[in-house]
Formats: sequence, structure tokens, C-alpha cells
Amino acid sequence: MLIKKNKLFSISMPVLITAIMQLSALSAAHAENAFMIKNGELQRPTGYREWVYVGTPVTPNDMNAGKAAFPEHHNVYIDPESWKHWKDKGEFPDGTIIIKELVSVGSKAAVSGQGYFQGEFVGLEATIKSKSNFPDEPGNWAYFSFSSKDHKTLTETAKAFPTESCNNCHKAAAADDFVFTQYYPVLTAGKATGKNASGGYQSELNNNYIEPKGK
Amino acid sequence: MLIKKNKLFSISMPVLITAIMQLSALSAAHAENAFMIKNGELQRPTGYREWVYVGTPVTPNDMNAGKAAFPEHHNVYIDPESWKHWKDKGEFPDGTIIIKELVSVGSKAAVSGQGYFQGEFVGLEATIKSKSNFPDEPGNWAYFSFSSKDHKTLTETAKAFPTESCNNCHKAAAADDFVFTQYYPVLTAGKATGKNASGGYQSELNNNYIEPKGK
Repeated sequence: MLIKKNKLFSISMPVLITAIMQLSALSAAHAENAFMIKNGELQRPTGYREWVYVGTPVTPNDMNAGKAAFPEHHNVYIDPESWKHWKDKGEFPDGTIIIKELVSVGSKAAVSGQGYFQGEFVGLEATIKSKSNFPDEPGNWAYFSFSSKDHKTLTETAKAFPTESCNNCHKAAAADDFVFTQYYPVLTAGKATGKNASGGYQSELNNNYIEPKGK
Repeated sequence: MLIKKNKLFSISMPVLITAIMQLSALSAAHAENAFMIKNGELQRPTGYREWVYVGTPVTPNDMNAGKAAFPEHHNVYIDPESWKHWKDKGEFPDGTIIIKELVSVGSKAAVSGQGYFQGEFVGLEATIKSKSNFPDEPGNWAYFSFSSKDHKTLTETAKAFPTESCNNCHKAAAADDFVFTQYYPVLTAGKATGKNASGGYQSELNNNYIEPKGK
């Protein structure tokens, strides 16, 4: 009886290896592209608030003649696989997707002082670097918007903008491979710095900031 | 020979279960606290730029009589385990750590418009909810700063501030359990909403934003 039981519960090495490979595959599933293009249109990305945040420019309506080109805070994220590549190699790999989630100004004063405080989500934009999808775009980057004109809804899919709509500005003014890394301290400080890129490992901040005397 | 080989490579069910449990334990390693308190001091957290970002208030020096209480952009993150709890249950669990990374204003104009653009890292703050560590603090929240006075370096460890330094403001003005969720759209919109919290699953933005006519 005991021998029979042991036999029933025994497992061959190939089966064990297969089981371990399947377990490993589960954790590596996000190695695939973090976006999907179908019939030439980008499907609205999901889950990006759990990607790696890189920085937030704020262009308030009240600082832009009443209406900003992109209202108003822009929370920017990169997909986790491309982040790994950036912090290891200092480059955006083919397949990079960068998300810009638009957020209104909710308040201009809080107990911490005067400023601009985030309110509600008002839009979603994305850029993707892909040689196979965008062989003719400069740097292979294409740009998309899912924001409705009134900033009340998001579309399900988006077509790439014509090259002149976005790429020209990015080419002229962006610091690194068409990306405005100069406004994204997580990318600037983390470029090819390995685990240091994830924050907290270094005591020296190496900044040019001068604390004002003030008050 | 073949039988002997099979015997060598056979594995019992208990061993297989142990192997699978060890593999699972690897992926669940971050279920432990994302912080360490030693001799009463919080050790400087690491890796938080890969946690979940929740929002960025900006209190520029130039909008605060030349010197903001916290200069200037405040990138705020929550540890991944507590985020999971927040999006499932809508509460901050015991063991929550929230990070506020301070970033200078690097620029006030870009091709996207006038505004405040992030510059360099200038400081690091944290708050932790822990009944065992802070039984007498309101809501069991304690507050820490690793920022040097000149915002040039970070300390290795930090002592909790006295209750009256931080907790009073948080108690009086923070929207949810001493946390200023009203300025963190990822937390506000994501409270107890499950996978929707991670972004992109819903077409309706459900905001009160009114797009200005402008320009």
C-alpha cells in the first residue's frame, strides 16, 4: 500500500521542469508589449497607474491664457519592462510605451501652502516606440490621444497623430530620444544607474538647488 | 539503468509542494512591511520609485513668499501591498507607508505651455501607519523626514516627529484617515474599485471639469 501511494505521488523530472517553467512564465508575462495595436489603432491601455511613474509637469489653464494645450497636470508613466531597460542601459527599447494621464487642477491652496493641487482625471495620451508599427516615424515614435474634446470621456481606440502634430516639437525640444526627460527626474536621475534608479539608495542628492532664506 | 535513472529523478509530492511554496514565497516577499524601524528610528526606505504613484501637489517657492514649507513638487507613492488593500477594501491597512519625494521646480516654461516643470530631487519624507510601533499616535500614523536643511543630502535614518508637528494638520484637513487623498486622484478614484483603480478600464471620466472656451 505504502509503495503504491508513493508511486502515485511521484513525479518525473521532465514534469517538474515543465511545472517550474509554467510558474516562471506567469511572472514573466509582462515581458510582452504593454500595448495592443489592432486594425492600425491603439487599444486604450490599461493598468498603467501601476507602472513606473516618471514625473508631472503642470500647465494650469490659468497660466495659459485660460486654456492649456494639455489640461492641466500631466502624470507620466513608463511600462515596467522598458523602465528596467532604461535603468540598466539608459535607452528606450523598441516597444516602449509612455502614458500621460491628464488631471485637472482641483485646488490652489492647502495647509501645505499655495500651489497647484490635483483634482480629477480629464484625459489620457500615449506615445509608443515601435519599429515594426511605425517604421517611417522619426525615432519610430507615434503619438495618441484618447481624450474627448470636452475631457469628459475616453475613446476605446486611437489613431496615431500625423507626424507634424507631435513629433516636430518632441524632436526639437525633448532631451533624450524624443522624450522630455528633462522634466522627468525619475528618468534623468535613473538613467543607466541600476537599482539606484528606484530611489533611496544614495545620501547625496547631487542637485543645484539653493534653499531660499525666505520667511 | 532506465529504471534507476527514473528513480533518481523522481520526486515525492511533499518535496514538490515545498518547491512550489518556495517559488510562491519569492513572489510574495513584498508582503512584508516595506519599511524597517531599528532602535526607534525609521531606516531610509528604498525602491519607492517602483511603488504605486498617487499624485503630486506642487507648492512652488515663488507662490509661497519665496520659501515653501515643502519645496516644491511632492511626488507621493504608496507601497504596493497597501495599494492592493486600498483598491480592494478602501482602507489603509496597518503597515501602510506613504512616501513624499520632494523635487525642485526646474523650469516654468516648455513647448507645452507655461507652468511648473520638475527639476531635481531635493528631499524625502514618509508617513507610516503602525499600531505596534505608534500605539499612541492619532490613527497610529507617524511622520518622518530624511531631508537635510539645505536639501542637498538625505539622512540614513529618521526619528518620528512629535505629534503636534504633523498630525494636527493631517487630522484637521486630510480627507481620509489622516491622508490628503483629496489631492491624490489615484487614491480618490481608486478607492475600493478593484482593477478599475489601475487605470484605463472605464470610458466615463465622471469629472466636474469644464473645458474653458479660451483661445
